[in-house]
Amino acid sequence: MEKIRRNERMSAMLKILTDAPNQIFTLSHFCDLFGAAKSTMSEDIDLLREVTRTFGLGELETVTGAAGGVRYRGTVSPRDARAYIEGLCANLSGVDRVLPGGFLYYSDVLSSPEITTRMGQIIATAYFDTAPDFVLTMETKGIPVALTTAYALGVPLVIARHNSRVYEGSAVNINYVSGSSGSIQTMSLARRAVREGTRALIVDDFLKGGGTAKGMVDLMHEFNVSVVGMAFVMATVNPEKKRISGEKALMTLDIRRSGEDMTAVVKPAAWLCGQ
Amino acid sequence: MEKIRRNERMSAMLKILTDAPNQIFTLSHFCDLFGAAKSTMSEDIDLLREVTRTFGLGELETVTGAAGGVRYRGTVSPRDARAYIEGLCANLSGVDRVLPGGFLYYSDVLSSPEITTRMGQIIATAYFDTAPDFVLTMETKGIPVALTTAYALGVPLVIARHNSRVYEGSAVNINYVSGSSGSIQTMSLARRAVREGTRALIVDDFLKGGGTAKGMVDLMHEFNVSVVGMAFVMATVNPEKKRISGEKALMTLDIRRSGEDMTAVVKPAAWLCGQ
Repeated sequence: MEKIRRNERMSAMLKILTDAPNQIFTLSHFCDLFGAAKSTMSEDIDLLREVTRTFGLGELETVTGAAGGVRYRGTVSPRDARAYIEGLCANLSGVDRVLPGGFLYYSDVLSSPEITTRMGQIIATAYFDTAPDFVLTMETKGIPVALTTAYALGVPLVIARHNSRVYEGSAVNINYVSGSSGSIQTMSLARRAVREGTRALIVDDFLKGGGTAKGMVDLMHEFNVSVVGMAFVMATVNPEKKRISGEKALMTLDIRRSGEDMTAVVKPAAWLCGQ
Repeated sequence: MEKIRRNERMSAMLKILTDAPNQIFTLSHFCDLFGAAKSTMSEDIDLLREVTRTFGLGELETVTGAAGGVRYRGTVSPRDARAYIEGLCANLSGVDRVLPGGFLYYSDVLSSPEITTRMGQIIATAYFDTAPDFVLTMETKGIPVALTTAYALGVPLVIARHNSRVYEGSAVNINYVSGSSGSIQTMSLARRAVREGTRALIVDDFLKGGGTAKGMVDLMHEFNVSVVGMAFVMATVNPEKKRISGEKALMTLDIRRSGEDMTAVVKPAAWLCGQ
């Protein structure tokens, strides 16, 4: 192979690392790929660490030890995260998106690849240290943000369903009380979808009473899986008391009524503003 | 700002471009960001074009004209696409994944961030030239690959639902005949989700009879939207005749029975092998 220049090598290396977020690559891997010495690779990585930091493009981390190497994490700084969520809140607040019955229309936000990618990075940043083995969501609207979170964390996504389907094979079903309607519903997950003794991060689109979230926690217990955290795109201000605790939402939603008029007040959640 | 070296500038530029696939950035944007001249930026881009080509990391394209600039497309070469899909087929073929009733278990594949990202790039590569304005899918299992396809194409994702929900606002409902069960089902999409006169690419996980796909085409006609293409992760070999035509699947599925035993034969689709 022709001799590769540092600028080419660095660009390719950063692209390869960012295509596989949170995965550790050994130095040897890059030495072989580029036909360069370890010392040269180390210098490249030092330079790339500076680049990503300077331009707010996430972080390169060197991991020491037997399974060591270098990994990319698409971390978002507290300031950038807050600014981004504030922008979203401005888009979602007001009267335009309030539907009859006091519901907020934000399906477009929840299925936007660009927005969910950023939200996934913000959620992942908060949970890297908890080292989940997979992300769990409940169909349907939380799937995109759960996928992007799983991508940023470098782990698989597991999707629980409303009913067990023939094409999922043997499944574990649990009943739970839906927080919004108070009715009993069923949640189902294929037995082969999850390994015992692993760690789950729950990600979903909407938290109101917490019934569905509680159901997901119970479901994980059935699989002997520990829940390391729970993240939501939106949490309602009311009811203040949820059936779960310790969760992180990105935004809070308050629908204020004044006669016939309803206004959505959407704000960044407190944990995003604390830093 | 301190003077930025070419290797740092190029790495950052490629990262910024690849974070927003298929979006055009003007040269001026990068000139401002890096405090460099247009001629320098052009040289950087030429070098990056070579880098991405050499390492199979997609393509940088210069777009001329008033709205011109440079864009990144995560294109996958025919050879790489075929090799990747062949690897998936090897994983999915055999007896282990066949469930009672002759269904194939591949939910793990459909919700893997890593696999769906690659599948999305392969589908997008086939449809860049059709210039869709958005990707349409039908809940639930196709959502991840539809999201990654939309991300690669740089367009929004729109999700049709089984029933209209209160929190979607006014919706268009259509009835369609489910290909697998022959029963009449309802498909629903919020009015505000789609603009008239735009172009849709349909992406879904599974194609058997084509009833659901036909329903999505009919739904788009209700919105006065043209369908520029249809892509599926998996298409069954039987029935050979589908209710739609012109679709591209990534893989074909044939469940072969021999007494009590069932074996899945999963192959790359013909269009992936033709080149």
